[in-house]
Amino acid sequence: MSLHALYPGSFDPLHNGHLDIIRRSSRLVARLTVAVLYNPLKSTARLPIETRLAVLREATAELPNVAVETFEGLLIDYARARGAHAVVKSLRNAADFEYEAQMAHLNRQLSGGLETLFLLAAPAWSFVSSTRVSELWRYGADVSALVPEATLKVLRAPKASPG
Amino acid sequence: MSLHALYPGSFDPLHNGHLDIIRRSSRLVARLTVAVLYNPLKSTARLPIETRLAVLREATAELPNVAVETFEGLLIDYARARGAHAVVKSLRNAADFEYEAQMAHLNRQLSGGLETLFLLAAPAWSFVSSTRVSELWRYGADVSALVPEATLKVLRAPKASPG
Amino acid sequence: MSLHALYPGSFDPLHNGHLDIIRRSSRLVARLTVAVLYNPLKSTARLPIETRLAVLREATAELPNVAVETFEGLLIDYARARGAHAVVKSLRNAADFEYEAQMAHLNRQLSGGLETLFLLAAPAWSFVSSTRVSELWRYGADVSALVPEATLKVLRAPKASPG
Amino acid sequence: MSLHALYPGSFDPLHNGHLDIIRRSSRLVARLTVAVLYNPLKSTARLPIETRLAVLREATAELPNVAVETFEGLLIDYARARGAHAVVKSLRNAADFEYEAQMAHLNRQLSGGLETLFLLAAPAWSFVSSTRVSELWRYGADVSALVPEATLKVLRAPKASPG
Amino acid sequence: MSLHALYPGSFDPLHNGHLDIIRRSSRLVARLTVAVLYNPLKSTARLPIETRLAVLREATAELPNVAVETFEGLLIDYARARGAHAVVKSLRNAADFEYEAQMAHLNRQLSGGLETLFLLAAPAWSFVSSTRVSELWRYGADVSALVPEATLKVLRAPKASPG
Amino acid sequence: MSLHALYPGSFDPLHNGHLDIIRRSSRLVARLTVAVLYNPLKSTARLPIETRLAVLREATAELPNVAVETFEGLLIDYARARGAHAVVKSLRNAADFEYEAQMAHLNRQLSGGLETLFLLAAPAWSFVSSTRVSELWRYGADVSALVPEATLKVLRAPKASPG
Repeated sequence: MSLHALYPGSFDPLHNGHLDIIRRSSRLVARLTVAVLYNPLKSTARLPIETRLAVLREATAELPNVAVETFEGLLIDYARARGAHAVVKSLRNAADFEYEAQMAHLNRQLSGGLETLFLLAAPAWSFVSSTRVSELWRYGADVSALVPEATLKVLRAPKASPG
Repeated sequence: MSLHALYPGSFDPLHNGHLDIIRRSSRLVARLTVAVLYNPLKSTARLPIETRLAVLREATAELPNVAVETFEGLLIDYARARGAHAVVKSLRNAADFEYEAQMAHLNRQLSGGLETLFLLAAPAWSFVSSTRVSELWRYGADVSALVPEATLKVLRAPKASPG
Repeated sequence: MSLHALYPGSFDPLHNGHLDIIRRSSRLVARLTVAVLYNPLKSTARLPIETRLAVLREATAELPNVAVETFEGLLIDYARARGAHAVVKSLRNAADFEYEAQMAHLNRQLSGGLETLFLLAAPAWSFVSSTRVSELWRYGADVSALVPEATLKVLRAPKASPG
Repeated sequence: MSLHALYPGSFDPLHNGHLDIIRRSSRLVARLTVAVLYNPLKSTARLPIETRLAVLREATAELPNVAVETFEGLLIDYARARGAHAVVKSLRNAADFEYEAQMAHLNRQLSGGLETLFLLAAPAWSFVSSTRVSELWRYGADVSALVPEATLKVLRAPKASPG
Repeated sequence: MSLHALYPGSFDPLHNGHLDIIRRSSRLVARLTVAVLYNPLKSTARLPIETRLAVLREATAELPNVAVETFEGLLIDYARARGAHAVVKSLRNAADFEYEAQMAHLNRQLSGGLETLFLLAAPAWSFVSSTRVSELWRYGADVSALVPEATLKVLRAPKASPG
Repeated sequence: MSLHALYPGSFDPLHNGHLDIIRRSSRLVARLTVAVLYNPLKSTARLPIETRLAVLREATAELPNVAVETFEGLLIDYARARGAHAVVKSLRNAADFEYEAQMAHLNRQLSGGLETLFLLAAPAWSFVSSTRVSELWRYGADVSALVPEATLKVLRAPKASPG
């Protein structure tokens, strides 16, 4: 048994809660693929997909069994194509649970068995989300306590700041 | 990486929701140890510990990487002693989440990193608990749709019915 | 279609939230039977079963399609014996929902279709429970805003005060 | 007492969870009107209102006491106009409860007594929503396990696929 | 110790639940500033900011320690600029709690200690929100039981009705 | 306005989450009285009331506006007798919210206006409770990261360890 798990998300931008889940889950599985959802039709993205991939690769460079990829379409199709057996998701609170449970049940039923492994967000990051980080940044807050260095560099770059 | 996970509980009695989690999680880890909490001071047990172990062993006989053991004391001490890297728990609803999150955070902090992997209870078993099964049985309900054959045999035995 | 519904509970004691559900649900069904659970083995009852029945009958005297009965054992067996097609329950908050959902799913599955109809507790009674009323009464609080006159008379009677 | 209840929604598209609630509630009331909300100003509809009505009528054809209608404006005004005494809603989880409770309390207060009867979604459909079905369909998933035949036919028709 | 607290929000429009929180919290603090968020970029406002300020000032005229102001940008920056030591927020249900907890933790961490004091919404207003009031008004409902006189006057004015 | 608030509880034993709430709320009010519930009939206490008072006094010695007292009976009666205008409570998660909301509404209604001010538990202590600390201690865990020095001394004393 050599578990290959996916950690899907938008990572727009990557924050410390994401990175904590990547580190912790990478110790539990043989391979972890961070899977960045690419939606060419969705215009609400803040950072370009290439920037998000680059940030993730820089932030996870020291983790040998972690890869970063992008995918389009259904997660269950992508998991089948990559031979992944499980999905990793983070739970911060009961509201996360209710939303993610719906997705996990659907994925399991439609795929014929793809499992979702839930890890608890660390208490220190249980109130952080990409949406909040972006709002805070847009209004000039110092978010350096909430995101890794790789994200900070991108946020501070002249052109890549989230819209 | 060869993950050894514990699935702790009272299993008093084992029901179909437990067995479903055992089967599903055994496919994701190298070794799964079902760990039956033994509390010599607690007088509220319904079935004797030996009966619960026997039921679990019968019900998991066909799963080669699943072992059944009993433990006393703290789960984090037991995990360390057995070299287990993670705990498996089931979530049926948001109330389960809030209770289990408290336990999981404490276990992670006090052990220096023992992780809890949460799986969703299958919808078909999301309303089943050992307490409800025992109550129903005591009042004469037919619980054969809720528990495996190994549990039914024990419940129907003259002396082992839960008090 | 002439719906006969059960409203089960302990009513120990009856409070204004209970009575509000009885009144509102009695307008929606052909017959409503308030079903007081009698558990001869349970020693935690506060008021004797006869007292609880008498309070309910007094408080519902003006409702022609409401009957008050006692039952032992499983609700699904009692519903079958009485030819009742549905159970009425009140929901005060999300915690109520999660508890009652478990019971309702079990009752529906084991009975082959007994439905539970949930009504929302009125906001004014969404924080009242028999346990809280009893505690408040025991410590000398004025609970006249929380319970009907029939309950007050019993609480004030020399011998029937809850233990 | 001959209860006429409304089951309001968008049904965009109708899925198996909706149909299960229609079947179950139609056994408890004298008349059930499935009330499809028509909002001429809202451009987010996926299927045209006529298509949704046709799907519902086909899927409920065998239920003699179920009618399908469309309505505009406030549910409480429509209920009054049609002489309906109650609204039927489904609860899948605690998040549904909190949202629906707000609506039900407002409807009850503003109408002077219109009640909402909540039924639990069957566990098998507790993770299905029209939004998820539409997303899955758009990305090419096989949703035949989640929706009735009448919906499938419409989804597969060349022009009516959800946008 | 002389506590200056902020009660931030959009108040679009002010409803009875808001006003209840203002009255109750004004009795607990030395000064309460109702802080109306002004977002010049956000086009979804229903009432102009000047109208919202005027409604609030009229409705709170009799409360000597309450001031009404507008602010732009981050609440933590505004609190620092005004010398406010705490934020007041209302909780209607568990969903409110989960959303507000995220904001309160972020505000506390990023500000170095700005506290949020939560008051429970009164049961009578636990189902009222500005969004629902606006929807109801748009569809012709009588909302006079849900909002103060100052709001009603504005809603009824020819031009200021929410879009 | 000079707010005197009560922080009631059992503090059996005092843990870091309690102490954090005491420190943070003491900065927001003129006087804070930590009110230890004394129930002479309840045999489930772990530490004697005198020990709990002594631990609290030692742990709060440096906070000039904090007093520690014991009370019997109803909190609302005690608040009236002491001239306290508000109660402080901590919220760790949505389950806490639902339980505490019930108590707070009852206290407010029965007292004619006693308010409860809720503070969020700091994330670092959001999973700590006296019950868990006691269980962990009984099984030999090192709880020094969860409780203040004053509690540790008592737990380590030969006779005062919780039963």
